[in-house]
Amino acid sequence: MNKYYSEAKLSAYEAIHEAQKIALGPFIFQASRSLVKLGILNKIEDQAEAGLSAKSISEDLSLPLYGVKVLLDMGLSAGIVWFDPETERYHLNKVGHFLINDEMTRVNMNFAHDVNYAGLAKLDEAITDQKAAGLGEFSKEHETIYPIISQLPEPAKTSWFEFDHFYSDNSFDRVLDKLFSFKPKKIVDIGCNTGKWALKVLNYDKDVKMILVDLPQQIAVAKENLKKAGLLERVEFKEVDLLSQDIPQIESADFVFMSQFLDCFSDEQIKMILSKVRKSCEGASLAILELFWDRQKHETASFVMNATSLYFTAMANGCSRFYSFTDFKSYLSEEGFNIDEQVDQIAIGGHSLLLCSKK
Amino acid sequence: MNKYYSEAKLSAYEAIHEAQKIALGPFIFQASRSLVKLGILNKIEDQAEAGLSAKSISEDLSLPLYGVKVLLDMGLSAGIVWFDPETERYHLNKVGHFLINDEMTRVNMNFAHDVNYAGLAKLDEAITDQKAAGLGEFSKEHETIYPIISQLPEPAKTSWFEFDHFYSDNSFDRVLDKLFSFKPKKIVDIGCNTGKWALKVLNYDKDVKMILVDLPQQIAVAKENLKKAGLLERVEFKEVDLLSQDIPQIESADFVFMSQFLDCFSDEQIKMILSKVRKSCEGASLAILELFWDRQKHETASFVMNATSLYFTAMANGCSRFYSFTDFKSYLSEEGFNIDEQVDQIAIGGHSLLLCSKK
Repeated sequence: MNKYYSEAKLSAYEAIHEAQKIALGPFIFQASRSLVKLGILNKIEDQAEAGLSAKSISEDLSLPLYGVKVLLDMGLSAGIVWFDPETERYHLNKVGHFLINDEMTRVNMNFAHDVNYAGLAKLDEAITDQKAAGLGEFSKEHETIYPIISQLPEPAKTSWFEFDHFYSDNSFDRVLDKLFSFKPKKIVDIGCNTGKWALKVLNYDKDVKMILVDLPQQIAVAKENLKKAGLLERVEFKEVDLLSQDIPQIESADFVFMSQFLDCFSDEQIKMILSKVRKSCEGASLAILELFWDRQKHETASFVMNATSLYFTAMANGCSRFYSFTDFKSYLSEEGFNIDEQVDQIAIGGHSLLLCSKK
Repeated sequence: MNKYYSEAKLSAYEAIHEAQKIALGPFIFQASRSLVKLGILNKIEDQAEAGLSAKSISEDLSLPLYGVKVLLDMGLSAGIVWFDPETERYHLNKVGHFLINDEMTRVNMNFAHDVNYAGLAKLDEAITDQKAAGLGEFSKEHETIYPIISQLPEPAKTSWFEFDHFYSDNSFDRVLDKLFSFKPKKIVDIGCNTGKWALKVLNYDKDVKMILVDLPQQIAVAKENLKKAGLLERVEFKEVDLLSQDIPQIESADFVFMSQFLDCFSDEQIKMILSKVRKSCEGASLAILELFWDRQKHETASFVMNATSLYFTAMANGCSRFYSFTDFKSYLSEEGFNIDEQVDQIAIGGHSLLLCSKK
């Protein structure tokens, strides 16, 4: 992250090379994807130390030699493979190894290509008009991607769910341990979605009660899931569209929990929601679980978050993102919340837990 | 270029970061393009050392603050800008400077986006079927891009010509000096195209005669251009489709010149053309001006060539490319030509001149 806060030390030659890698980025991306999808990198890896010639790859995979070579030469330029002129065989670099063996890389590449690639071409329009201009690739009628996620054409649908699953299906044990150290009796879950988090909470503590708040469609799904789990009796449901409706008064809740919920809204909407929470849940503390790109230990995590924000911009809703903690805490402050405690990296995905109370 | 021939020395952490930069490459590319196109990088540069806040950029350019920030944060992750937390102002890194001030970078980015971006999504199909599968973005009827270049929709047309112009409009003075050191009296120009090279040759030496060979459409254009220049009387024209017709016998030529012509063909086609040249131009030497990605002094040049080859694959014809010298010399050898002299880097674009004679 340090590199974000001081001038990059590159020679002019290194910088101009880096600029070409950006300017011709789509060639690197698509060639890399083809090297993966057509099985070329896997074939090379199968040979381990020995490496493999372009001719053998072409024969083994029944691919035209021309195509194999044109991809591998781009792979050389992108540092994915290297070539031994003595044996005329290609070998994987570590980057090539990760392209085929690392789940995060696989999920990111498919998400980039299947969900975002075409729509991202309209990023400048999305920025200017503050609407998800790239969503037209999938639907001309909708302003956000959310209602049509389960109707996305394949492979977009699978790639969307794999991406979502990879980044949200973390172990949240430490979050639960932290929250229950305060011995809460009633937790409000705003933006409960399918009830996944509520299930964890209700199973963690056999006495805790919950109030789930979300749009009617989500509440219906959550209700169904909690019913299946036999957990309905400790739960109340409230159908609320937070953008147009107030939250009904909720008495004696210990926590209002919001997990990766506020990143679906613009800064102004976040402040409006915080203000509604402030009015409706007297006495409750706020427990916010969020991803902040400026609270990451690893630069790669910040990078993935900043890239994913552009999915929100171009494809999802045109107005939300993974915020910086710097901005986010100013929204809390403006709406009258203090941050009493902050635990960064509380879950594997790089989440921060903020415990807040009214000023 | 050395990095092509030995394993890259990266830590696992560096390699996994590099893999994410590839996997999420379209986000970097489109964000960078928007930072350029929307004038954000220029605004920052205008402030020189002082830098500029996101809020000022948003106000000065009448762009939503959300959009400015989401782009700049991607710019931080991509090393294009850096942020001073003291002043809350953004500054350009050298990479950002080149993105807006370097002509090669500008031309490459526009070529990548306007001509190639959409079609490159079909690169794997182009590889498998050995046809320009991405060309469907512009025409469903054509198998190669060549007949429709001047009918491409804007901005693709302008970006195509700017790219072509940037890389081919080099000074070829050293090539002419070299060729005329042999005091040639008659030069055959195969693939004369618009007659641009012929014009240079005829103006360089007031006595030299030329024979121009190309498809009928190209010959018509070349004839028109040479007529305008008042140079028709020293030129003969031969309309030949080299893929289906033989070259008529040509007597007493000193050189058969081919400038960036053979890279428009597949390896098998190149060998067929060389064989036809061998039969028709008894006694003439071959002078080939080509770009070889493995004869470049700068890694950036190799990279640009390997990327451009994928334009040939996905968009232009599905079968040609910038060859490696290693492969190219084997085609010459198979068709009975020796390389008598080779001058690398003879023109600014990184061209090599090969002077060849029959074995």
